[in-house]
Amino acid sequence: MSTTTERDCDNANLLDRYLHIRLATERLCAPLVTEDYVVQAMPDASPIKWHLAHTSWFFETFVLRPHLVGYMPLHEAYEALFNSYYNSIGTPFPRPERGHLSRPTVAEVYAYRAHVDKAMLTLLERLPESLGPVVDLGLNHEQQHQELILTDLKYALAVNPLRPAYVENGARTEGPTLQLNFVAFAGGLTEMGFDGSGFAFDNELPRHRVYLRPFQLANRAVTNGEFLQFVEAGGYQSWELWLSEGWRVSQERGWQAPLYWEQHDGAWWRYTLAGMRPLETQGPVTHVSYYEADAYARWRGKRLPTEAEWEHAAATQPTLGTFLDDGWYEPRPATGPDNALAQMLGDVWEWTQSAYLPYPGFHPLSGGLGEYNGKFMMNQMVLRGGSCATPRSHIRVSYRNFFPPDARWQFSGLRLAEDC
Amino acid sequence: MSTTTERDCDNANLLDRYLHIRLATERLCAPLVTEDYVVQAMPDASPIKWHLAHTSWFFETFVLRPHLVGYMPLHEAYEALFNSYYNSIGTPFPRPERGHLSRPTVAEVYAYRAHVDKAMLTLLERLPESLGPVVDLGLNHEQQHQELILTDLKYALAVNPLRPAYVENGARTEGPTLQLNFVAFAGGLTEMGFDGSGFAFDNELPRHRVYLRPFQLANRAVTNGEFLQFVEAGGYQSWELWLSEGWRVSQERGWQAPLYWEQHDGAWWRYTLAGMRPLETQGPVTHVSYYEADAYARWRGKRLPTEAEWEHAAATQPTLGTFLDDGWYEPRPATGPDNALAQMLGDVWEWTQSAYLPYPGFHPLSGGLGEYNGKFMMNQMVLRGGSCATPRSHIRVSYRNFFPPDARWQFSGLRLAEDC
Amino acid sequence: MSTTTERDCDNANLLDRYLHIRLATERLCAPLVTEDYVVQAMPDASPIKWHLAHTSWFFETFVLRPHLVGYMPLHEAYEALFNSYYNSIGTPFPRPERGHLSRPTVAEVYAYRAHVDKAMLTLLERLPESLGPVVDLGLNHEQQHQELILTDLKYALAVNPLRPAYVENGARTEGPTLQLNFVAFAGGLTEMGFDGSGFAFDNELPRHRVYLRPFQLANRAVTNGEFLQFVEAGGYQSWELWLSEGWRVSQERGWQAPLYWEQHDGAWWRYTLAGMRPLETQGPVTHVSYYEADAYARWRGKRLPTEAEWEHAAATQPTLGTFLDDGWYEPRPATGPDNALAQMLGDVWEWTQSAYLPYPGFHPLSGGLGEYNGKFMMNQMVLRGGSCATPRSHIRVSYRNFFPPDARWQFSGLRLAEDC
Amino acid sequence: MSTTTERDCDNANLLDRYLHIRLATERLCAPLVTEDYVVQAMPDASPIKWHLAHTSWFFETFVLRPHLVGYMPLHEAYEALFNSYYNSIGTPFPRPERGHLSRPTVAEVYAYRAHVDKAMLTLLERLPESLGPVVDLGLNHEQQHQELILTDLKYALAVNPLRPAYVENGARTEGPTLQLNFVAFAGGLTEMGFDGSGFAFDNELPRHRVYLRPFQLANRAVTNGEFLQFVEAGGYQSWELWLSEGWRVSQERGWQAPLYWEQHDGAWWRYTLAGMRPLETQGPVTHVSYYEADAYARWRGKRLPTEAEWEHAAATQPTLGTFLDDGWYEPRPATGPDNALAQMLGDVWEWTQSAYLPYPGFHPLSGGLGEYNGKFMMNQMVLRGGSCATPRSHIRVSYRNFFPPDARWQFSGLRLAEDC
Repeated sequence: MSTTTERDCDNANLLDRYLHIRLATERLCAPLVTEDYVVQAMPDASPIKWHLAHTSWFFETFVLRPHLVGYMPLHEAYEALFNSYYNSIGTPFPRPERGHLSRPTVAEVYAYRAHVDKAMLTLLERLPESLGPVVDLGLNHEQQHQELILTDLKYALAVNPLRPAYVENGARTEGPTLQLNFVAFAGGLTEMGFDGSGFAFDNELPRHRVYLRPFQLANRAVTNGEFLQFVEAGGYQSWELWLSEGWRVSQERGWQAPLYWEQHDGAWWRYTLAGMRPLETQGPVTHVSYYEADAYARWRGKRLPTEAEWEHAAATQPTLGTFLDDGWYEPRPATGPDNALAQMLGDVWEWTQSAYLPYPGFHPLSGGLGEYNGKFMMNQMVLRGGSCATPRSHIRVSYRNFFPPDARWQFSGLRLAEDC
Repeated sequence: MSTTTERDCDNANLLDRYLHIRLATERLCAPLVTEDYVVQAMPDASPIKWHLAHTSWFFETFVLRPHLVGYMPLHEAYEALFNSYYNSIGTPFPRPERGHLSRPTVAEVYAYRAHVDKAMLTLLERLPESLGPVVDLGLNHEQQHQELILTDLKYALAVNPLRPAYVENGARTEGPTLQLNFVAFAGGLTEMGFDGSGFAFDNELPRHRVYLRPFQLANRAVTNGEFLQFVEAGGYQSWELWLSEGWRVSQERGWQAPLYWEQHDGAWWRYTLAGMRPLETQGPVTHVSYYEADAYARWRGKRLPTEAEWEHAAATQPTLGTFLDDGWYEPRPATGPDNALAQMLGDVWEWTQSAYLPYPGFHPLSGGLGEYNGKFMMNQMVLRGGSCATPRSHIRVSYRNFFPPDARWQFSGLRLAEDC
Repeated sequence: MSTTTERDCDNANLLDRYLHIRLATERLCAPLVTEDYVVQAMPDASPIKWHLAHTSWFFETFVLRPHLVGYMPLHEAYEALFNSYYNSIGTPFPRPERGHLSRPTVAEVYAYRAHVDKAMLTLLERLPESLGPVVDLGLNHEQQHQELILTDLKYALAVNPLRPAYVENGARTEGPTLQLNFVAFAGGLTEMGFDGSGFAFDNELPRHRVYLRPFQLANRAVTNGEFLQFVEAGGYQSWELWLSEGWRVSQERGWQAPLYWEQHDGAWWRYTLAGMRPLETQGPVTHVSYYEADAYARWRGKRLPTEAEWEHAAATQPTLGTFLDDGWYEPRPATGPDNALAQMLGDVWEWTQSAYLPYPGFHPLSGGLGEYNGKFMMNQMVLRGGSCATPRSHIRVSYRNFFPPDARWQFSGLRLAEDC
Repeated sequence: MSTTTERDCDNANLLDRYLHIRLATERLCAPLVTEDYVVQAMPDASPIKWHLAHTSWFFETFVLRPHLVGYMPLHEAYEALFNSYYNSIGTPFPRPERGHLSRPTVAEVYAYRAHVDKAMLTLLERLPESLGPVVDLGLNHEQQHQELILTDLKYALAVNPLRPAYVENGARTEGPTLQLNFVAFAGGLTEMGFDGSGFAFDNELPRHRVYLRPFQLANRAVTNGEFLQFVEAGGYQSWELWLSEGWRVSQERGWQAPLYWEQHDGAWWRYTLAGMRPLETQGPVTHVSYYEADAYARWRGKRLPTEAEWEHAAATQPTLGTFLDDGWYEPRPATGPDNALAQMLGDVWEWTQSAYLPYPGFHPLSGGLGEYNGKFMMNQMVLRGGSCATPRSHIRVSYRNFFPPDARWQFSGLRLAEDC
């Protein structure tokens, strides 16, 4: 048990992080016009104003309503309207219809955020120790939605024939690509899962033993240029490279290249958050589904790593990058010694060949928050590492992201692996 | 051929009408917030900003581009983006995805309107005589979209759990309902179709002979109160009252009452453009599909009129209301002599049992405008009379509105008929 | 009221017709193997054994159960299993799943027929006068299913890559095509609808007056050779020839020619009930939807006739063919004087531009049989004339066949019309 | 390398097995009428005659065509018609339409089998050593289809309102259920995957190390009676017990109990291959999806085992049953010492919580047969143990069966597990 002083200090830190993270969400929206907040271009993506409201709803529902005496919700209808999928809270408004709602307006949603923030500040000043974890969860939840704001917005702007840009100049100029090498790992009996002292999602626990055969991992992610070779070699026309379901999906949807790639007059372009840009061959390929990642790996005579291999490799490499004092993560540059792993964290989500399933001994959180992760453990694949859109302080070696194998609108790419 | 002076006068009138009608469209939008312009709550409805742009696109495409020397379109992408269904103009942006577009913004759409208006004013000052009809068509087209703006907006606001109002106080207070009577018509050989000197759509032509058996027509529209009796008598649970396809549709969609009706604690409410209101039993029932109108009539032992019967009755009644000098139409009040027809024009669109098919001798307009009406003559039913949302100067006895038999989001109701 | 003797005579005739028609149904099935009776290749078509059973069910349900004292149904489950769409009888087994049923077997279905026939013979020997019309309806119903047996079977055999033949040599050798001419009709006030003394469906009644403008009707049906010109001229790629809904459907389903046409090495073939045959250019085009018929007519600068025009023309031509004493109809040969109408009856169902709607004063049959026709009067178009697959004694000038405008598996073609 | 004599002996054995297994397939069909061979009641199930033909096609395609000089296929069209999913062989006839084909007839399919058998016998008399594995694969393939013949047939008979029986008396009389106990396993580093000398599918290889935490496994499968408690306790109405996707599916399809269960007058019945029977509470529950199995386990406070746990437990139990000399397997009776595992093999397929993914170091077969297993490793879950419908000689401890988590038409049940 911590002393009062320590708890005050913890609370001060939490309050500080609360303000920092909530503000960061709104800063992401600074370049938007009102209309950009409203649209929903596919069922999997949500309107930006929904993200702004839902993250506030999370604090209202799991912190303020049960724990702040006298808290008055701003609007009773918001309970259902901004409930994502928590059956314990009631019947959520249907996800595919989130874009049908003009009201509450963007301004009203910001007022909702302010209403929640004001109450949270009151509570955070004298937060009972037991509430720390749920506030922490709420902040990590908000960070997840920060990334979704960018991916959902990108999708909505990209389907617009005007191809509007979110920022003027967001495209990174990639340096020369690191020479591709494979780094060998001896495998054996090892451990995986979170073991730090800070925050982790329930799905990263418990830490447990796994046995690995010797394997090799590529020292960097697959680049756009390399993936272009696959495209041009007819990879999208070669059923023998694809999983059966992947081939069906790719044919049905007419996939010919990663999402957002377009060919004009023989040249390849790519929609980015800074608008249409010539394809940067040096940068990591993004916006590929598991099926495409898997087909690419097969074409190269390689395979995707398992999440255990990936985590083992990441955990045993001392030079992935630097976690700074404020939690910010500075990735190791993609240039450097060829026998070390680059781009493991914070560049691109890397598909693994592991299904998203509970770790041995897994227990979901108790209460309504038990719906956070566990109930989605079916028909999804694990991605590791974090992308350029992931908040730096949200990145962890043990972090398990997950999406269905046909999802393409995330910053998802791959790194090759092979048996020794 | 008209003299120069007459033509100048005509042009002045046309210019005046142009300004009047274009302004009326924008006035309809005055109560909206930006977000209201963006959403599309079902494929059949369009975002309000799409209506604003599409009506401008019509003038740009069919008047300005071909006929105003030196006209510069504001944005090349708008040609496809705001094309509704004219294959002759190119491939339209897919209708169900109109609500996926945040850009152009509402402000940009208004700028587009201003751009078109400015060019139109230049042209209208010295309009070649031959262009009068196409400008007239554009204005009537814009008036059609004025009604669609209200119906599409109503739909989008109604699906919102907040049930926001468009106007503070738009609900009419209905006086006491006229006693229901049937007015007899002898039938015989008569004529139908437009024969005036002003504007008419191609589908109202040519005027032609039809033979009618003796029939009777109700002196007013069916009211909410009468339709409520059908609801409460189990009309929605009685397959024997319904067309086969109507029964299938009503079961599949779970229809239990007209669109926008809701029952709370035993009392019936209705969403209106002024928000949720207790059901006004005196007013005409609206937002029923053909299937519901037809089932209601069968339940009463009556039937729907044919469009020939409806037009014949309307054309031979001197007291439907008054067309004022400015084209404005003042409907005959629903109170008055019981043996005369009330509510024929401007109260509610009345489903007829006539399929929307070409009149004998019909010829569509030539060129791209030939796509305006003719190609939709299949699987739709004719409605007559105009609703409370129809611009008054747009109402005509020979006017043929048409919608698929399952459509409910228009102000559509019915009037009973029977054989003599 | 008829005397006993007359009634006995009527009954003898009815019994004779009963035996003749029931036997004719089974003779149609003589060439089938057991497996052919079972399959259902699309929801609109039914397994042949279902037709055999359903036509028996009709007599059992509407004649035997209510009127034959002591009648014992063969199997209680058949009431629902072979109910097509009569809600008054109970909940029918779902239509699209009729092909999922291996039992009752074909032999059991024939036993069901025998069981019903035996009881019907008992009843027919002393049939109450009032039952004559319903037996007559049952026989006409069975004749309708005789045609459906052929069209449904043809569809099922045609989708089979083996393209098996139903009969060895069923393809007619067409003589030289009659020179195309248009026969003029003055129109005016005329009558349509059944007025004979024999059997007619309720939808052919009442006879009523219509007014027709002068029109011309082609002296014969459109041929395969003529329709091939449309195909080769790019008719299926020319949106401007099509109704909006027709264009959508044709694109979605990839229509490039009439159903059953196939091109091999540049030559056109057609699946017929006698297997694959080179396209007979002289024969009437069949298996086109309303949309294709309509597009073809537009391409030729003509139109489809209305059903009133068609019936008026047929009724006023003395030489359509000969109705023999036994009710058998002998069509007028397609060769003959050019100014007379050929192929009006018994060659091919001809799409008209008339929606299938009730005649003025229409009343459906009372009781459960009221579901026979009236409830389908929506989103269907009328066809006239009868096809090569229609039983000869089933053909009538006033006969109204009807199918949705996208239906192609019937022997449906067209005849051109135009205004004078 | 084996000597000629040994090979002759192997071939004799293989020939003997070939005849035995091919005959067993046809014996399964002995109770069928012709119609039963034809129908396809859902896309996942195939007509019985398709199974008979496809298993023959397998030998024709992978053995006879490439390896028997002078082999003449019976019909060229069969290559596509009976290809299940091998893109390397060409474009298969669409799976959901297999039930649309009346031809080839059942007799023709048996003739096809005879044609293939005759050629196989010729080949098997002097079979090159290298072909042994592919013939062996073909026989195991045929055994898989033997089970599918039973499950697909059961589905087709069960959807038939007549609920016809396949056999007169096939329902086992279950003895008293073994008392439920949990058997503890210490876990640790162990091995899994096939290591015998006989046949195994590629997906059972390579044998590899895994690390297991201590766990307990139920000594028998969950019974109908136990599952009935879940049904009656509202398990199908309790979202909190279900995976998110499972809840969605169960709601959408209206699941209220396992497939084939029906409640009549308060009593539970179950369709079996011997027709409708009162629910045998003692027998293992079958025909539950992964979602239902998983929800049941959660309701009991337990979980499903992983496939590694299952295989480890099975492999280390000496008394699962007896593999007789002829490969036939005699399961250990469900009565016996409570601390030993019963019903592990040959009673019911048991869902595991392991996704169907490649083992570390997995390599699919080369050539066209590489499509056999590997390309389906996505969105499926592993089942272990074999069911009452699995041929006894086809059962193996390392055998990996797999189905999508919503599949219910297999004999699929579950066994509980828990952490120590």
